[in-house]
Amino acid sequence: MPKVMARPLKLQRGTSVPAHVQIEQWLLNSIASGELAAGDRLPPERDFAASLGVSRMTLRQSLDMLQRRGLLTRTIGRRGGTFVGEPKVECDLTTLIGFSEQLRRRGMTAGARVVSAAEEQADPTVAKALALSEGAPVYLVVRVRLANDRPLLLERSHFPAERFPGLLDQAMGGSLYELLEERYGQRPRRAIESLESVSAGPLEARLLEVPKGTALMLIERTAYGTDGVPVEFARDTFRGDRTRIVVWSDIEHAL
Amino acid sequence: MPKVMARPLKLQRGTSVPAHVQIEQWLLNSIASGELAAGDRLPPERDFAASLGVSRMTLRQSLDMLQRRGLLTRTIGRRGGTFVGEPKVECDLTTLIGFSEQLRRRGMTAGARVVSAAEEQADPTVAKALALSEGAPVYLVVRVRLANDRPLLLERSHFPAERFPGLLDQAMGGSLYELLEERYGQRPRRAIESLESVSAGPLEARLLEVPKGTALMLIERTAYGTDGVPVEFARDTFRGDRTRIVVWSDIEHAL
Repeated sequence: MPKVMARPLKLQRGTSVPAHVQIEQWLLNSIASGELAAGDRLPPERDFAASLGVSRMTLRQSLDMLQRRGLLTRTIGRRGGTFVGEPKVECDLTTLIGFSEQLRRRGMTAGARVVSAAEEQADPTVAKALALSEGAPVYLVVRVRLANDRPLLLERSHFPAERFPGLLDQAMGGSLYELLEERYGQRPRRAIESLESVSAGPLEARLLEVPKGTALMLIERTAYGTDGVPVEFARDTFRGDRTRIVVWSDIEHAL
Repeated sequence: MPKVMARPLKLQRGTSVPAHVQIEQWLLNSIASGELAAGDRLPPERDFAASLGVSRMTLRQSLDMLQRRGLLTRTIGRRGGTFVGEPKVECDLTTLIGFSEQLRRRGMTAGARVVSAAEEQADPTVAKALALSEGAPVYLVVRVRLANDRPLLLERSHFPAERFPGLLDQAMGGSLYELLEERYGQRPRRAIESLESVSAGPLEARLLEVPKGTALMLIERTAYGTDGVPVEFARDTFRGDRTRIVVWSDIEHAL
Protein backbone atom coordinates (compact mmCIF):
# COMPACT_ATOMS: atom_id res chain seq x y z
CA MET A 1 0.00 0.00 0.00
CA PRO A 2 1.38 3.38 -0.92
CA LYS A 3 2.06 5.67 1.98
CA VAL A 4 -0.53 8.39 2.52
CA MET A 5 1.19 11.62 3.43
CA ALA A 6 -0.31 13.29 6.49
CA ARG A 7 1.03 16.67 5.47
CA PRO A 8 0.31 17.14 1.76
CA LEU A 9 2.30 19.64 -0.23
CA LYS A 10 0.71 22.95 -1.21
CA LEU A 11 2.68 24.02 -4.24
CA GLN A 12 3.48 27.70 -4.29
CA ARG A 13 2.80 29.26 -7.67
CA GLY A 14 4.38 32.46 -8.83
CA THR A 15 7.63 31.93 -6.90
CA SER A 16 11.09 31.57 -8.37
CA VAL A 17 11.37 28.07 -6.86
CA PRO A 18 10.38 25.55 -9.57
CA ALA A 19 7.69 23.01 -8.69
CA HIS A 20 10.09 20.05 -8.92
CA VAL A 21 12.39 21.66 -6.34
CA GLN A 22 9.44 22.28 -4.02
CA ILE A 23 8.41 18.63 -4.32
CA GLU A 24 11.98 17.48 -3.71
CA GLN A 25 12.27 19.66 -0.61
CA TRP A 26 8.92 18.44 0.70
CA LEU A 27 9.95 14.79 0.29
CA LEU A 28 13.34 15.48 1.90
CA ASN A 29 11.58 17.09 4.84
CA SER A 30 9.16 14.17 5.13
CA ILE A 31 12.11 11.79 5.29
CA ALA A 32 13.95 14.03 7.80
CA SER A 33 10.89 14.29 10.06
CA GLY A 34 10.39 10.52 9.97
CA GLU A 35 7.01 10.75 8.28
CA LEU A 36 8.52 8.74 5.44
CA ALA A 37 10.67 5.82 6.59
CA ALA A 38 12.90 3.26 4.85
CA GLY A 39 10.77 0.85 2.84
CA ASP A 40 7.73 3.16 2.57
CA ARG A 41 6.23 3.13 -0.89
CA LEU A 42 5.22 6.31 -2.68
CA PRO A 43 1.94 6.42 -4.64
CA PRO A 44 2.10 5.39 -8.33
CA GLU A 45 3.53 8.22 -10.43
CA ARG A 46 0.30 8.99 -12.27
CA ASP A 47 -1.78 9.32 -9.06
CA PHE A 48 1.01 11.09 -7.20
CA ALA A 49 1.45 13.69 -9.95
CA ALA A 50 -2.32 14.24 -10.15
CA SER A 51 -2.61 14.69 -6.37
CA LEU A 52 0.15 17.31 -6.48
CA GLY A 53 -1.33 19.03 -9.52
CA VAL A 54 1.84 18.68 -11.61
CA SER A 55 2.75 16.81 -14.77
CA ARG A 56 4.35 13.38 -14.49
CA MET A 57 7.49 14.89 -16.02
CA THR A 58 7.76 17.43 -13.22
CA LEU A 59 7.25 14.78 -10.58
CA ARG A 60 9.79 12.55 -12.24
CA GLN A 61 12.41 15.32 -12.12
CA SER A 62 12.07 15.39 -8.33
CA LEU A 63 12.09 11.61 -7.98
CA ASP A 64 15.11 11.29 -10.29
CA MET A 65 17.12 13.72 -8.20
CA LEU A 66 16.25 11.97 -4.95
CA GLN A 67 17.05 8.63 -6.54
CA ARG A 68 20.45 9.96 -7.65
CA ARG A 69 21.05 11.08 -4.07
CA GLY A 70 20.17 7.59 -2.89
CA LEU A 71 17.14 8.64 -0.87
CA LEU A 72 14.65 6.81 -3.05
CA THR A 73 14.92 3.53 -4.90
CA ARG A 74 12.79 2.49 -7.85
CA THR A 75 12.02 -0.98 -9.04
CA ILE A 76 10.06 -2.11 -12.04
CA GLY A 77 7.68 -4.99 -12.63
CA ARG A 78 4.39 -5.99 -11.09
CA ARG A 79 5.51 -5.27 -7.52
CA GLY A 80 7.64 -2.35 -8.60
CA GLY A 81 7.37 1.22 -7.42
CA THR A 82 9.21 4.05 -5.73
CA PHE A 83 10.39 3.35 -2.21
CA VAL A 84 12.17 5.29 0.49
CA GLY A 85 15.75 3.98 0.60
CA GLU A 86 17.75 2.40 3.40
CA PRO A 87 19.57 4.82 5.68
CA LYS A 88 23.15 5.33 4.57
CA VAL A 89 26.24 3.90 6.21
CA GLU A 90 28.12 6.74 7.85
CA CYS A 91 31.85 6.90 7.06
CA ASP A 92 33.71 9.30 9.33
CA LEU A 93 36.78 10.58 7.51
CA THR A 94 38.11 12.43 10.51
CA THR A 95 39.16 9.27 12.24
CA LEU A 96 41.70 6.74 11.06
CA ILE A 97 39.77 4.03 12.84
CA GLY A 98 39.43 1.51 10.04
CA PHE A 99 36.34 0.94 8.01
CA SER A 100 35.84 -2.52 9.55
CA GLU A 101 35.86 -1.07 13.05
CA GLN A 102 33.52 1.77 12.07
CA LEU A 103 31.00 -0.75 10.74
CA ARG A 104 31.35 -3.01 13.78
CA ARG A 105 30.52 -0.08 16.04
CA ARG A 106 27.30 0.36 14.09
CA GLY A 107 26.38 -3.31 14.43
CA MET A 108 27.08 -4.12 10.77
CA THR A 109 29.25 -6.85 9.28
CA ALA A 110 32.32 -5.59 7.42
CA GLY A 111 33.66 -7.61 4.52
CA ALA A 112 36.27 -7.28 1.80
CA ARG A 113 36.53 -9.01 -1.56
CA VAL A 114 40.03 -8.93 -3.04
CA VAL A 115 39.90 -7.98 -6.71
CA SER A 116 43.66 -8.05 -7.24
CA ALA A 117 46.91 -7.81 -5.29
CA ALA A 118 50.13 -7.35 -7.26
CA GLU A 119 53.49 -5.64 -7.39
CA GLU A 120 53.65 -2.63 -9.68
CA GLN A 121 56.02 0.19 -10.51
CA ALA A 122 55.12 3.55 -9.00
CA ASP A 123 53.83 5.96 -11.63
CA PRO A 124 54.59 9.67 -11.05
CA THR A 125 51.40 10.28 -9.02
CA VAL A 126 51.95 7.32 -6.73
CA ALA A 127 55.69 8.01 -6.44
CA LYS A 128 55.06 11.61 -5.43
CA ALA A 129 52.46 10.63 -2.82
CA LEU A 130 54.64 7.91 -1.29
CA ALA A 131 57.88 9.92 -1.56
CA LEU A 132 59.45 7.21 -3.73
CA SER A 133 61.30 7.46 -7.01
CA GLU A 134 59.31 6.77 -10.14
CA GLY A 135 59.30 3.11 -10.99
CA ALA A 136 59.98 2.02 -7.40
CA PRO A 137 58.16 -1.19 -6.46
CA VAL A 138 54.77 -0.77 -4.81
CA TYR A 139 52.07 -3.24 -3.87
CA LEU A 140 48.66 -2.41 -5.27
CA VAL A 141 45.76 -4.02 -3.45
CA VAL A 142 42.32 -3.58 -5.00
CA ARG A 143 39.34 -4.60 -2.88
CA VAL A 144 35.60 -4.14 -2.75
CA ARG A 145 34.53 -3.28 0.78
CA LEU A 146 31.19 -4.63 1.88
CA ALA A 147 28.72 -3.81 4.63
CA ASN A 148 26.29 -6.60 5.39
CA ASP A 149 27.51 -8.22 2.15
CA ARG A 150 26.61 -5.25 -0.05
CA PRO A 151 29.34 -3.28 -1.89
CA LEU A 152 29.96 0.19 -0.47
CA LEU A 153 33.27 1.22 -1.95
CA LEU A 154 36.11 0.20 -4.20
CA GLU A 155 39.49 0.57 -2.54
CA ARG A 156 42.78 0.88 -4.43
CA SER A 157 45.66 1.02 -1.96
CA HIS A 158 49.34 1.37 -2.85
CA PHE A 159 51.99 0.42 -0.30
CA PRO A 160 55.77 0.91 -0.64
CA ALA A 161 57.05 -2.64 -1.24
CA GLU A 162 60.37 -2.12 0.52
CA ARG A 163 58.65 -1.16 3.73
CA PHE A 164 56.27 -4.11 3.76
CA PRO A 165 58.17 -7.17 2.48
CA GLY A 166 55.95 -10.19 1.94
CA LEU A 167 52.74 -8.18 2.19
CA LEU A 168 51.19 -10.01 -0.75
CA ASP A 169 51.62 -13.35 1.05
CA GLN A 170 49.28 -12.24 3.80
CA ALA A 171 45.52 -12.78 3.93
CA MET A 172 43.86 -9.60 2.67
CA GLY A 173 40.25 -10.26 3.66
CA GLY A 174 40.32 -8.21 6.85
CA SER A 175 41.59 -4.85 8.01
CA LEU A 176 44.82 -3.92 6.18
CA TYR A 177 45.65 -1.34 8.85
CA GLU A 178 45.52 -4.04 11.51
CA LEU A 179 47.72 -6.21 9.29
CA LEU A 180 50.28 -3.40 8.89
CA GLU A 181 50.37 -2.96 12.63
CA GLU A 182 50.52 -6.62 13.64
CA ARG A 183 53.01 -7.73 10.97
CA TYR A 184 55.17 -4.66 10.54
CA GLY A 185 54.48 -2.52 13.63
CA GLN A 186 53.44 0.32 11.30
CA ARG A 187 50.06 1.68 12.16
CA PRO A 188 49.14 4.75 10.04
CA ARG A 189 48.77 7.64 12.46
CA ARG A 190 47.69 10.53 10.29
CA ALA A 191 46.29 10.97 6.80
CA ILE A 192 45.29 13.65 4.36
CA GLU A 193 42.31 12.99 2.14
CA SER A 194 41.02 14.88 -0.86
CA LEU A 195 37.51 14.45 -2.17
CA GLU A 196 35.93 14.84 -5.57
CA SER A 197 32.89 13.64 -7.46
CA VAL A 198 33.51 11.30 -10.37
CA SER A 199 31.25 9.14 -12.48
CA ALA A 200 31.46 5.36 -12.50
CA GLY A 201 33.57 3.86 -15.29
CA PRO A 202 33.10 0.25 -16.47
CA LEU A 203 35.23 -1.23 -13.65
CA GLU A 204 33.51 0.66 -10.84
CA ALA A 205 30.09 -0.02 -12.36
CA ARG A 206 30.72 -3.75 -12.41
CA LEU A 207 32.34 -4.07 -9.00
CA LEU A 208 30.06 -1.68 -7.16
CA GLU A 209 26.94 -2.93 -8.99
CA VAL A 210 25.78 0.46 -10.23
CA PRO A 211 24.94 1.72 -13.74
CA LYS A 212 27.85 3.26 -15.66
CA GLY A 213 27.94 7.01 -15.16
CA THR A 214 26.54 6.91 -11.60
CA ALA A 215 28.01 9.71 -9.48
CA LEU A 216 30.55 8.35 -7.00
CA MET A 217 32.74 10.05 -4.43
CA LEU A 218 36.48 9.62 -5.05
CA ILE A 219 38.62 9.98 -1.97
CA GLU A 220 42.39 10.05 -2.36
CA ARG A 221 44.23 9.34 0.85
CA THR A 222 47.88 9.52 1.82
CA ALA A 223 48.50 7.95 5.23
CA TYR A 224 51.64 8.54 7.27
CA GLY A 225 53.28 6.28 9.83
CA THR A 226 54.54 7.23 13.27
CA ASP A 227 57.79 8.49 11.72
CA GLY A 228 55.91 10.83 9.36
CA VAL A 229 56.81 8.77 6.29
CA PRO A 230 53.96 7.93 3.88
CA VAL A 231 52.90 4.28 4.16
CA GLU A 232 49.81 4.19 1.95
CA PHE A 233 48.38 6.02 -1.04
CA ALA A 234 44.82 5.01 -1.77
CA ARG A 235 42.06 5.91 -4.18
CA ASP A 236 38.69 4.89 -2.82
CA THR A 237 35.43 5.31 -4.72
CA PHE A 238 32.29 5.35 -2.58
CA ARG A 239 28.70 4.62 -3.54
CA GLY A 240 27.02 7.86 -2.55
CA ASP A 241 23.63 6.19 -2.31
CA ARG A 242 24.84 3.83 0.43
CA THR A 243 27.31 5.95 2.31
CA ARG A 244 27.24 9.29 4.01
CA ILE A 245 30.70 10.80 4.23
CA VAL A 246 31.12 12.93 7.33
CA VAL A 247 33.92 15.07 8.70
CA TRP A 248 34.34 16.64 12.11
CA SER A 249 36.12 19.94 12.22
CA ASP A 250 37.46 21.92 15.08
CA ILE A 251 38.42 25.48 15.68
CA GLU A 252 41.64 24.28 17.31
CA HIS A 253 42.77 22.26 14.31
CA ALA A 254 45.65 24.14 12.74
CA LEU A 255 45.98 24.41 8.97
CA MET B 1 52.10 26.57 -29.61
CA PRO B 2 50.89 23.18 -28.46
CA LYS B 3 53.05 21.55 -25.85
CA VAL B 4 55.29 18.79 -27.12
CA MET B 5 55.33 15.94 -24.64
CA ALA B 6 58.84 14.80 -23.76
CA ARG B 7 57.58 11.40 -22.68
CA PRO B 8 55.08 10.19 -25.27
CA LEU B 9 52.59 7.52 -24.36
CA LYS B 10 53.08 3.98 -25.61
CA LEU B 11 49.60 2.50 -25.57
CA GLN B 12 49.50 -1.05 -24.28
CA ARG B 13 47.38 -3.27 -26.45
CA GLY B 14 45.86 -6.52 -25.26
CA THR B 15 45.39 -5.33 -21.69
CA SER B 16 42.11 -4.96 -19.83
CA VAL B 17 42.77 -1.23 -19.38
CA PRO B 18 40.93 0.64 -22.15
CA ALA B 19 42.97 3.07 -24.28
CA HIS B 20 41.06 6.12 -23.04
CA VAL B 21 41.91 5.22 -19.43
CA GLN B 22 45.58 4.82 -20.34
CA ILE B 23 45.56 8.24 -22.00
CA GLU B 24 43.81 9.79 -19.02
CA GLN B 25 46.32 8.28 -16.61
CA TRP B 26 49.24 9.43 -18.75
CA LEU B 27 47.94 13.01 -18.85
CA LEU B 28 47.28 12.93 -15.09
CA ASN B 29 50.83 11.77 -14.53
CA SER B 30 52.21 14.46 -16.82
CA ILE B 31 50.34 17.07 -14.78
CA ALA B 32 51.49 15.52 -11.49
CA SER B 33 55.13 15.43 -12.62
CA GLY B 34 54.96 19.04 -13.73
CA GLU B 35 55.65 18.23 -17.37
CA LEU B 36 52.27 19.78 -18.13
CA ALA B 37 51.63 23.03 -16.28
CA ALA B 38 48.67 25.42 -15.97
CA GLY B 39 48.09 27.20 -19.27
CA ASP B 40 49.90 24.63 -21.42
CA ARG B 41 48.04 23.87 -24.62
CA LEU B 42 47.51 20.32 -25.87
CA PRO B 43 47.90 19.56 -29.58
CA PRO B 44 44.76 19.87 -31.76
CA GLU B 45 42.54 16.83 -31.29
CA ARG B 46 43.07 15.44 -34.78
CA ASP B 47 46.88 15.56 -34.55
CA PHE B 48 46.91 14.43 -30.94
CA ALA B 49 44.72 11.40 -31.67
CA ALA B 50 46.86 10.49 -34.70
CA SER B 51 50.09 10.75 -32.70
CA LEU B 52 48.63 8.40 -30.07
CA GLY B 53 47.27 6.01 -32.67
CA VAL B 54 43.68 6.23 -31.42
CA SER B 55 40.41 7.54 -32.83
CA ARG B 56 39.33 11.08 -32.02
CA MET B 57 36.41 9.61 -30.10
CA THR B 58 38.73 7.65 -27.83
CA LEU B 59 40.88 10.71 -27.20
CA ARG B 60 37.80 12.79 -26.52
CA GLN B 61 36.65 10.34 -23.87
CA SER B 62 39.86 10.97 -21.94
CA LEU B 63 39.75 14.72 -22.42
CA ASP B 64 36.09 14.87 -21.39
CA MET B 65 36.81 13.08 -18.15
CA LEU B 66 39.75 15.32 -17.30
CA GLN B 67 37.67 18.36 -18.18
CA ARG B 68 34.90 17.15 -15.85
CA ARG B 69 37.49 16.81 -13.11
CA GLY B 70 38.59 20.37 -13.79
CA LEU B 71 42.12 19.44 -14.85
CA LEU B 72 41.67 20.60 -18.44
CA THR B 73 39.70 23.49 -19.87
CA ARG B 74 38.52 23.75 -23.43
CA THR B 75 37.64 26.84 -25.38
CA ILE B 76 36.30 27.17 -28.87
CA GLY B 77 36.94 29.67 -31.63
CA ARG B 78 40.01 30.67 -33.57
CA ARG B 79 42.27 30.75 -30.51
CA GLY B 80 40.44 27.86 -28.88
CA GLY B 81 41.92 24.57 -27.79
CA THR B 82 42.49 22.29 -24.83
CA PHE B 83 44.52 23.76 -21.98
CA VAL B 84 45.82 22.54 -18.68
CA GLY B 85 43.67 24.17 -15.96
CA GLU B 86 44.56 26.44 -13.09
CA PRO B 87 45.58 24.71 -9.86
CA LYS B 88 42.63 24.33 -7.51
CA VAL B 89 41.99 26.31 -4.34
CA GLU B 90 42.43 23.99 -1.39
CA CYS B 91 39.61 24.02 1.17
CA ASP B 92 40.54 22.26 4.38
CA LEU B 93 37.37 20.96 6.03
CA THR B 94 39.16 19.80 9.15
CA THR B 95 39.64 23.29 10.41
CA LEU B 96 36.96 25.79 11.32
CA ILE B 97 39.28 28.59 10.31
CA GLY B 98 36.99 30.51 7.99
CA PHE B 99 37.16 30.46 4.24
CA SER B 100 38.36 34.08 4.12
CA GLU B 101 41.28 33.28 6.39
CA GLN B 102 42.16 30.11 4.44
CA LEU B 103 42.35 32.13 1.23
CA ARG B 104 44.37 34.92 2.84
CA ARG B 105 46.93 32.37 4.01
CA ARG B 106 47.30 31.33 0.39
CA GLY B 107 47.78 34.89 -0.79
CA MET B 108 44.39 35.10 -2.47
CA THR B 109 41.66 37.68 -2.07
CA ALA B 110 38.46 36.39 -0.46
CA GLY B 111 35.16 37.97 -1.40
CA ALA B 112 31.48 37.39 -0.81
CA ARG B 113 28.46 38.50 -2.83
CA VAL B 114 25.23 38.48 -0.85
CA VAL B 115 22.44 36.87 -2.90
CA SER B 116 19.78 37.18 -0.21
CA ALA B 117 19.44 37.58 3.56
CA ALA B 118 16.01 37.06 5.08
CA GLU B 119 14.08 35.66 8.00
CA GLU B 120 12.41 32.31 7.34
CA GLN B 121 10.61 29.62 9.27
CA ALA B 122 12.67 26.53 10.02
CA ASP B 123 11.56 23.58 7.90
CA PRO B 124 11.91 20.11 9.50
CA THR B 125 15.48 19.59 8.22
CA VAL B 126 16.71 22.96 9.45
CA ALA B 127 14.79 22.67 12.72
CA LYS B 128 16.31 19.26 13.44
CA ALA B 129 19.85 20.44 12.68
CA LEU B 130 19.53 23.59 14.81
CA ALA B 131 17.57 21.86 17.62
CA LEU B 132 14.65 24.26 17.15
CA SER B 133 10.95 23.59 16.80
CA GLU B 134 9.56 23.54 13.28
CA GLY B 135 8.56 26.97 12.14
CA ALA B 136 10.92 28.73 14.55
CA PRO B 137 12.46 31.89 13.06
CA VAL B 138 15.83 31.48 11.36
CA TYR B 139 17.95 33.82 9.30
CA LEU B 140 18.92 32.45 5.92
CA VAL B 141 21.96 34.10 4.35
CA VAL B 142 22.80 33.08 0.79
CA ARG B 143 26.16 34.20 -0.55
CA VAL B 144 28.51 33.44 -3.41
CA ARG B 145 32.05 33.14 -2.08
CA LEU B 146 34.79 34.36 -4.38
CA ALA B 147 38.52 33.82 -4.63
CA ASN B 148 40.31 36.48 -6.64
CA ASP B 149 36.85 37.60 -7.80
CA ARG B 150 35.89 34.21 -9.25
CA PRO B 151 32.99 32.20 -7.77
CA LEU B 152 34.07 29.11 -5.84
CA LEU B 153 31.03 28.13 -3.85
CA LEU B 154 27.45 28.98 -3.05
CA GLU B 155 26.83 29.21 0.66
CA ARG B 156 23.37 28.87 2.28
CA SER B 157 23.66 29.42 6.03
CA HIS B 158 20.82 29.24 8.52
CA PHE B 159 21.19 30.87 11.94
CA PRO B 160 18.71 30.66 14.84
CA ALA B 161 17.15 34.14 14.90
CA GLU B 162 16.64 34.24 18.67
CA ARG B 163 20.31 33.73 19.29
CA PHE B 164 21.48 36.43 16.90
CA PRO B 165 19.04 39.36 17.14
CA GLY B 166 19.66 42.03 14.53
CA LEU B 167 21.93 39.81 12.44
CA LEU B 168 20.33 40.93 9.20
CA ASP B 169 21.21 44.56 9.99
CA GLN B 170 24.92 43.75 9.88
CA ALA B 171 27.17 43.97 6.84
CA MET B 172 27.46 40.49 5.34
CA GLY B 173 30.31 41.00 2.91
CA GLY B 174 33.01 39.56 5.15
CA SER B 175 33.51 36.59 7.44
CA LEU B 176 30.21 35.64 9.13
CA TYR B 177 32.10 33.67 11.80
CA GLU B 178 34.06 36.78 12.75
CA LEU B 179 30.78 38.69 12.84
CA LEU B 180 29.20 36.10 15.16
CA GLU B 181 32.17 36.34 17.45
CA GLU B 182 32.55 40.12 17.51
CA ARG B 183 28.84 40.96 17.76
CA TYR B 184 27.51 38.05 19.80
CA GLY B 185 30.58 36.46 21.38
CA GLN B 186 29.60 33.17 19.74
CA ARG B 187 32.40 31.68 17.76
CA PRO B 188 31.56 28.23 16.33
CA ARG B 189 33.98 25.77 17.93
CA ARG B 190 33.14 22.46 16.33
CA ALA B 191 31.22 21.29 13.29
CA ILE B 192 30.10 18.14 11.58
CA GLU B 193 30.04 18.14 7.81
CA SER B 194 28.58 15.65 5.39
CA LEU B 195 29.56 15.49 1.74
CA GLU B 196 27.81 14.36 -1.38
CA SER B 197 27.99 14.95 -5.11
CA VAL B 198 25.09 16.77 -6.71
CA SER B 199 24.55 18.31 -10.10
CA ALA B 200 24.05 22.02 -10.61
CA GLY B 201 20.43 23.18 -10.80
CA PRO B 202 19.43 26.46 -12.49
CA LEU B 203 20.27 28.61 -9.42
CA GLU B 204 23.72 27.11 -8.84
CA ALA B 205 24.47 27.20 -12.57
CA ARG B 206 23.70 30.90 -12.78
CA LEU B 207 25.45 31.98 -9.58
CA LEU B 208 28.51 29.75 -9.93
CA GLU B 209 28.77 30.37 -13.68
CA VAL B 210 28.76 26.72 -14.73
CA PRO B 211 26.55 24.81 -17.18
CA LYS B 212 23.45 23.20 -15.66
CA GLY B 213 24.15 19.61 -14.65
CA THR B 214 27.82 20.22 -13.76
CA ALA B 215 28.92 17.99 -10.87
CA LEU B 216 29.26 19.98 -7.66
CA MET B 217 30.17 18.99 -4.12
CA LEU B 218 27.43 19.62 -1.59
CA ILE B 219 28.66 20.02 1.97
CA GLU B 220 26.12 20.22 4.77
CA ARG B 221 27.52 21.64 7.96
CA THR B 222 26.15 21.97 11.47
CA ALA B 223 28.38 24.15 13.64
CA TYR B 224 28.21 24.22 17.42
CA GLY B 225 29.07 27.03 19.82
CA THR B 226 31.16 26.82 22.97
CA ASP B 227 28.12 25.60 24.91
CA GLY B 228 27.55 22.72 22.47
CA VAL B 229 24.37 24.27 21.06
CA PRO B 230 24.06 24.42 17.24
CA VAL B 231 24.59 27.95 15.91
CA GLU B 232 24.64 27.38 12.15
CA PHE B 233 23.26 24.93 9.63
CA ALA B 234 24.70 25.47 6.16
CA ARG B 235 24.47 23.91 2.74
CA ASP B 236 27.48 24.86 0.63
CA THR B 237 27.92 23.82 -2.98
CA PHE B 238 31.49 23.88 -4.26
CA ARG B 239 32.78 24.11 -7.83
CA GLY B 240 34.85 20.96 -8.03
CA ASP B 241 36.90 22.33 -10.91
CA ARG B 242 38.17 25.24 -8.80
CA THR B 243 38.40 23.70 -5.36
CA ARG B 244 40.13 20.74 -3.84
CA ILE B 245 38.37 19.60 -0.68
CA VAL B 246 40.80 18.11 1.82
CA VAL B 247 40.45 16.51 5.21
CA TRP B 248 43.07 15.62 7.78
CA SER B 249 42.40 12.56 9.85
CA ASP B 250 44.06 11.24 12.92
CA ILE B 251 44.31 7.94 14.67
CA GLU B 252 43.58 9.69 17.97
CA HIS B 253 40.33 11.24 16.77
CA ALA B 254 37.55 9.37 18.54
CA LEU B 255 34.37 8.44 16.71
